[in-house]
Amino acid sequence: MDNIKAYAAMEPGGTLEPFTYDPGPLAPDHVEIDVIASGLCHSDISMLDNAWGISRFPLVGGHEVTGRISKRGEAVTHLDIGQVVGLGWISQSCAHCQTCTGGDQHHCQSIRPTIAGRHGGFANKVRAQAMWALPLPDGLDPKTAGPLFCGGITVFSPIYELGLKPTDRLAVIGIGGLGHLALKFGRAWGCDVTAFTSTIDKTDSLLELGAHHVVNSRDKEAIKALRGQFDMVISTVNVNLPWHNYIAALAPKGRLVQVGIPHEPMSVRAGSLIAGQKSIYGSDTGSPATLMKMLEFCARHNITPEIESFAMSDINAAIARLKSGQARYRIVLTSDEP
Amino acid sequence: MDNIKAYAAMEPGGTLEPFTYDPGPLAPDHVEIDVIASGLCHSDISMLDNAWGISRFPLVGGHEVTGRISKRGEAVTHLDIGQVVGLGWISQSCAHCQTCTGGDQHHCQSIRPTIAGRHGGFANKVRAQAMWALPLPDGLDPKTAGPLFCGGITVFSPIYELGLKPTDRLAVIGIGGLGHLALKFGRAWGCDVTAFTSTIDKTDSLLELGAHHVVNSRDKEAIKALRGQFDMVISTVNVNLPWHNYIAALAPKGRLVQVGIPHEPMSVRAGSLIAGQKSIYGSDTGSPATLMKMLEFCARHNITPEIESFAMSDINAAIARLKSGQARYRIVLTSDEP
Repeated sequence: MDNIKAYAAMEPGGTLEPFTYDPGPLAPDHVEIDVIASGLCHSDISMLDNAWGISRFPLVGGHEVTGRISKRGEAVTHLDIGQVVGLGWISQSCAHCQTCTGGDQHHCQSIRPTIAGRHGGFANKVRAQAMWALPLPDGLDPKTAGPLFCGGITVFSPIYELGLKPTDRLAVIGIGGLGHLALKFGRAWGCDVTAFTSTIDKTDSLLELGAHHVVNSRDKEAIKALRGQFDMVISTVNVNLPWHNYIAALAPKGRLVQVGIPHEPMSVRAGSLIAGQKSIYGSDTGSPATLMKMLEFCARHNITPEIESFAMSDINAAIARLKSGQARYRIVLTSDEP
Repeated sequence: MDNIKAYAAMEPGGTLEPFTYDPGPLAPDHVEIDVIASGLCHSDISMLDNAWGISRFPLVGGHEVTGRISKRGEAVTHLDIGQVVGLGWISQSCAHCQTCTGGDQHHCQSIRPTIAGRHGGFANKVRAQAMWALPLPDGLDPKTAGPLFCGGITVFSPIYELGLKPTDRLAVIGIGGLGHLALKFGRAWGCDVTAFTSTIDKTDSLLELGAHHVVNSRDKEAIKALRGQFDMVISTVNVNLPWHNYIAALAPKGRLVQVGIPHEPMSVRAGSLIAGQKSIYGSDTGSPATLMKMLEFCARHNITPEIESFAMSDINAAIARLKSGQARYRIVLTSDEP
């Protein structure tokens, strides 16, 4: 049995250290993946800090993984040894409940997140149920594609599942790891795209990423002037904003999609939703089928995450860089065993 | 020119008094309707009290009207003199903007509500743009059908427009003028229907109205036990409830629809929406096309409002009855000139 060489925090908030573990026998419906690269997501930090109270230590983060199939369980026939796949937030679902068989496997009551109660992709290998190891289409580079599997799907899923139309106006609040991909998706989708950012000096690069318009998210008057404009607003930020202004900026039937989680509850006036049949929608990740649709779309439109690359052995420096808020726009760790 | 004989409040909160006004020339795209009956809605009280700050006095309420076409403007050809029609919250829209031509006339920026800045159906006659005077199908009684045009459409619209499926589970919070119709719609729609009520002694009548299950809305433990159950929850109440419990009671992709307007903002945890792709949706009224779909559906399924009937000359007694909270379930005023 080959042990897996990973980087783990031994306690909440701890520095990551080399950590070796025995993954045990490979389940029949699982695969083992030789990691090529692994994106670094804010959710990794939340888990490493046990911010959500669900972490178990030693904790190996990493849930935006690309790699090659190195082993497959005896029930797995549709993936080949050596095939390049990606793995995101979820590593396992029951595959037989009504939710799973209906195609909403990401809402299965028995899902196993990749880094909760099991070990993730900050390692030379990672395992997952074969259903969640999605083949990377030709044209996507495994060194950069990892962030699609969490950051990407998080913003692609509402665009796809809520039926955003190419004739619609899309706005994105907060242009980081998730937001910059939302701009790229919205542009390729055919929409008019507005970026709301508090870092207005990023304007030129946001226009390059796909935004048609850039608005200072701290300028309340500018937001008020956009009354009735947007069919969808995706918020990626983790703080409460003056939501009534953003709801007012929605067109009739417009949707405010929350993919960030403010620590405090949102304050929402029901009347502001009722006039115009507006809604506030929450979205987390996506199903395998939606992930595959996203990957095809990215390959067709040359959509790749903008990344800063670190060696996995420099993981603690990478985390410090992420925490600085300066990363443009996603950090990806490259395996020590390329 | 025939004057119109109405009942008006002369000041906010004032007793209604007989009031005669000259409606002026009939616009070419408008009709005049001889009122048969007019439902009494909580929104009439809000307008009579100027609770929303948009009332103009003298104020003639009444926006759940049935009656017969008595005059038609020169451009109106699709309605006949003597034809029975109904009129709801909206009496006019611009008919040429993108929203109107797209079929969402109720979201037109230029809508004229029936009782704001013009006079409503607590009168012997009322006028409206012909588009908003919807023919009553055979089988619906104009003496009872009025409440469909505001209370009814308010709860029908989300069921219809959000694509509730007959296989879905629907819950309704607050069983009054709107809620009792939501139960009837949900039952005829084919759904499993749950009524949440604070008046648990109504249980037998709620089961008769269409509910399969009745739950005490003040029993937090009972609500918690319904975790993950409902595809749609329609709240008709005007107070804040422990929304997190109702959001937890939604199935994945479930929708909490607000048609009541609590005075205070709702407190909503974004994370509770994100896990399971849930949403909070606001809905007010419906388009002419949706109103027609509702009327057809009501005729097919014998859905009629449960009413208490008052003579229009007893309007002040009817208002007192409405304010008592005892009306089962909607009050309808019958014209003094039947």
